[in-house]
Amino acid sequence: MRVTVWNENFHESRGEEPAVRWYPAGIHAVIAEALEARLGPTAEVRTATMEQPEHGLSAEVLGQTDVLLWWAHMRHHEVDDQVVARVVDAVHGGMGLLLLHSAHISKPFRALIGSTGALEWRNDGDRELVWTASPAHPIAAGIPHPIVIDDQEVYGEPFDIPAPDDVVFISSFSGGEAFRSGVTFRRGRGRIFYFSPGDQDYPVYHQPEIGDVLANAVRWATPDGARGVRESAHRRPVDSSALDRPSDRTAP
Amino acid sequence: MRVTVWNENFHESRGEEPAVRWYPAGIHAVIAEALEARLGPTAEVRTATMEQPEHGLSAEVLGQTDVLLWWAHMRHHEVDDQVVARVVDAVHGGMGLLLLHSAHISKPFRALIGSTGALEWRNDGDRELVWTASPAHPIAAGIPHPIVIDDQEVYGEPFDIPAPDDVVFISSFSGGEAFRSGVTFRRGRGRIFYFSPGDQDYPVYHQPEIGDVLANAVRWATPDGARGVRESAHRRPVDSSALDRPSDRTAP
Amino acid sequence: MRVTVWNENFHESRGEEPAVRWYPAGIHAVIAEALEARLGPTAEVRTATMEQPEHGLSAEVLGQTDVLLWWAHMRHHEVDDQVVARVVDAVHGGMGLLLLHSAHISKPFRALIGSTGALEWRNDGDRELVWTASPAHPIAAGIPHPIVIDDQEVYGEPFDIPAPDDVVFISSFSGGEAFRSGVTFRRGRGRIFYFSPGDQDYPVYHQPEIGDVLANAVRWATPDGARGVRESAHRRPVDSSALDRPSDRTAP
Amino acid sequence: MRVTVWNENFHESRGEEPAVRWYPAGIHAVIAEALEARLGPTAEVRTATMEQPEHGLSAEVLGQTDVLLWWAHMRHHEVDDQVVARVVDAVHGGMGLLLLHSAHISKPFRALIGSTGALEWRNDGDRELVWTASPAHPIAAGIPHPIVIDDQEVYGEPFDIPAPDDVVFISSFSGGEAFRSGVTFRRGRGRIFYFSPGDQDYPVYHQPEIGDVLANAVRWATPDGARGVRESAHRRPVDSSALDRPSDRTAP
Repeated sequence: MRVTVWNENFHESRGEEPAVRWYPAGIHAVIAEALEARLGPTAEVRTATMEQPEHGLSAEVLGQTDVLLWWAHMRHHEVDDQVVARVVDAVHGGMGLLLLHSAHISKPFRALIGSTGALEWRNDGDRELVWTASPAHPIAAGIPHPIVIDDQEVYGEPFDIPAPDDVVFISSFSGGEAFRSGVTFRRGRGRIFYFSPGDQDYPVYHQPEIGDVLANAVRWATPDGARGVRESAHRRPVDSSALDRPSDRTAP
Repeated sequence: MRVTVWNENFHESRGEEPAVRWYPAGIHAVIAEALEARLGPTAEVRTATMEQPEHGLSAEVLGQTDVLLWWAHMRHHEVDDQVVARVVDAVHGGMGLLLLHSAHISKPFRALIGSTGALEWRNDGDRELVWTASPAHPIAAGIPHPIVIDDQEVYGEPFDIPAPDDVVFISSFSGGEAFRSGVTFRRGRGRIFYFSPGDQDYPVYHQPEIGDVLANAVRWATPDGARGVRESAHRRPVDSSALDRPSDRTAP
Repeated sequence: MRVTVWNENFHESRGEEPAVRWYPAGIHAVIAEALEARLGPTAEVRTATMEQPEHGLSAEVLGQTDVLLWWAHMRHHEVDDQVVARVVDAVHGGMGLLLLHSAHISKPFRALIGSTGALEWRNDGDRELVWTASPAHPIAAGIPHPIVIDDQEVYGEPFDIPAPDDVVFISSFSGGEAFRSGVTFRRGRGRIFYFSPGDQDYPVYHQPEIGDVLANAVRWATPDGARGVRESAHRRPVDSSALDRPSDRTAP
Repeated sequence: MRVTVWNENFHESRGEEPAVRWYPAGIHAVIAEALEARLGPTAEVRTATMEQPEHGLSAEVLGQTDVLLWWAHMRHHEVDDQVVARVVDAVHGGMGLLLLHSAHISKPFRALIGSTGALEWRNDGDRELVWTASPAHPIAAGIPHPIVIDDQEVYGEPFDIPAPDDVVFISSFSGGEAFRSGVTFRRGRGRIFYFSPGDQDYPVYHQPEIGDVLANAVRWATPDGARGVRESAHRRPVDSSALDRPSDRTAP
């Protein structure tokens, strides 16, 4: 299991408070640690950030990534379209993708769901309760019902996404909003999970239950079969005596 | 547009407080009035209750019903299985069905979704906020975002239903729960809408916005084409020169 | 992995030709053998037939079954409603269910999907080609594209089912029909797979690729977590200091 | 009802045989005529082609289009990304979009479904039978079962698309392939229909049944409510006494 945690790393690298209080080495560092602690030696967890060449997501890195986590907030529009296309291709070929928090309007998420990902929001330090809506889903295994997050930004419906395969979590906020906070999609061979809890201003990623959800999601999104994108393929006329499966293109 | 509002009529017929304070003539009477006021002379609204012969839902009544509303709470298990089968057949043939509040575990709902309809609940007079999750859905047209219900029983996730076609509404409650409070399904030719707001102990069905939702839902669930259940049909070998559509069985 | 192969065993027990030519010990025996050969010693495969007490599906048997396969054709209406309810409950609690061929109108399938399962059919010994529509689905792993079945009964659209989670296979027939021949659903904790190839008149279940599909489907449908039906549960008011998950009812 | 029929117009404008035999004035002209004949004076049908400035799809044209039809084959990669973004935005805001034949790998379709749209194909003049899989869907109203197309290019599964809302049509081909030939999606406020029958080499768009399907689809995809894209919106803290709906951005 090869995991890459990607972070825009904007707030932290600029030394913004309170981001650097909670995430002095960057949100990606805290998430990577949480995954390593839970997935153990079977997982190889690395990080990448936006300021690196090719945003740290070269073809080689993606080729060696089973599941990519994506955290971003302020600089979605500055993400290189070639890198976005590479991520989308990798998902089609089987790579898992976890979109975190403000990534609801990131370029890769929009490109994969085909919707705007728009939602309503306000930031007043509300209490968020994360309820399990699909108790049989592997991402919900062992997760408390609800997870209690004492201070968190508010996201609210309508959340402009296509009907998800599964609504795993639904959150309420002390101010009254409700939100589908954990939803899954498939595109090509790849599994996609959007999970809203987590913000640069609050220590959400330090909560053990949040780490548990992310580790469950990495396990769930890990491809279990051959990787590779199917391209539109010319096929021979059907001949019952010699029918076989056209081979897939090797994954990027 | 021919509408039948069905009510178990248990709490009201026994004179229970506070049910009879809010619904002295029965919940069905208040709902029927709300629909008549909104749908106007194009709609013919009648009521039926459980204590009537065949629960008021004879084959003749269902054959003249385009949309059936179903309110029930305490006596689900006493509903005649033959009437349930008749309702299910009518939905398959194109009749719309609106399931209200405790009807989440009614026999017709369970038979049509194939799940238990189980959920979590408590009754402490919470404030419910009903948020629109699908603003483009006809059932949400003109509905405030959110609807505010001052006093209401709490329903919570997990709600054991198959993935719905649309999650139209999601509610939060002042005690912190969240719930998919308006969801749609199709079965055969029929459209199904489950809507949780509404309880015998609170005057929810007197709220204008709730009446608006129900009227929108009746319009949406009204069949727009031929009625009739498709049965497993033997077909002739395909003959390109004379291919045609097998006729449907006439609706019940 | 504990598997039970259930068979109506009508044609075979009456000695009907050609059923007894292909399936002298019953279709269930051939399917059980195919599964044992593929799943190996990790699987315990047993069979049950309609003429046994409780159709061979006592609460004890179902409690020890991870995946149930259901083959039936002529006597759907004679299946005991109590046994049907028991099967449905077991699926809700996590048991996998594979419905085979004419089981498209069996009582358990109808009860779980909420539709009629009706389709069009004719029996002229057509060639069926079974194409993979979801190549990333575990049930399609290693399956030829297409599977070629030389002689088979024809099933055709429209197939009256709710929108499935996945269309794994789509078949064409030499006479021109097309049909969604492998579709999946979830209900409660249970996974459901309907697969149409297979008939008492043809040796379809002797084909290695068909055995491969069934073995893949058994693996896919095996519950990976706790068993148990969630019932509508009263919950205490939310108390952030002591929130926890209500326990599930033990599975049947 | 304002309809725009867009055509790449590559084969026809180059005078290629047999395209110009069947479509001397372009495929768009034949489709526009078929729609006008069926939709009558309530519809205003115009055409646009790729070689026009902005491909004939200026912001003004899209702002006056309720349903856009898109036919393209050879020059998908040359379509201006700004025009694609404009079409995608218009769909999110409520414009209906019909993708025809080779548009399965067009930029707008890929951008809206998030998948590759890949499929298998060969061109040998097969007979295609188009079967109705969802007889209650408005697009299937009055359509023969099956439509018989004597000569047509073959498309085959797997078709790399997300699970559609509805599979309206499934085709078989005389050579044995099967294909989901009519599928629907929603994105934002917009309705999307992909329909594969139709090719520059065959007179498919002259068949009355094909025109009927397209006219049904235009009626179905016409937006019935307000147009406008929801953007991520900051909301005020919830105040029960003054809750209201944030206004939508005006449609493009």
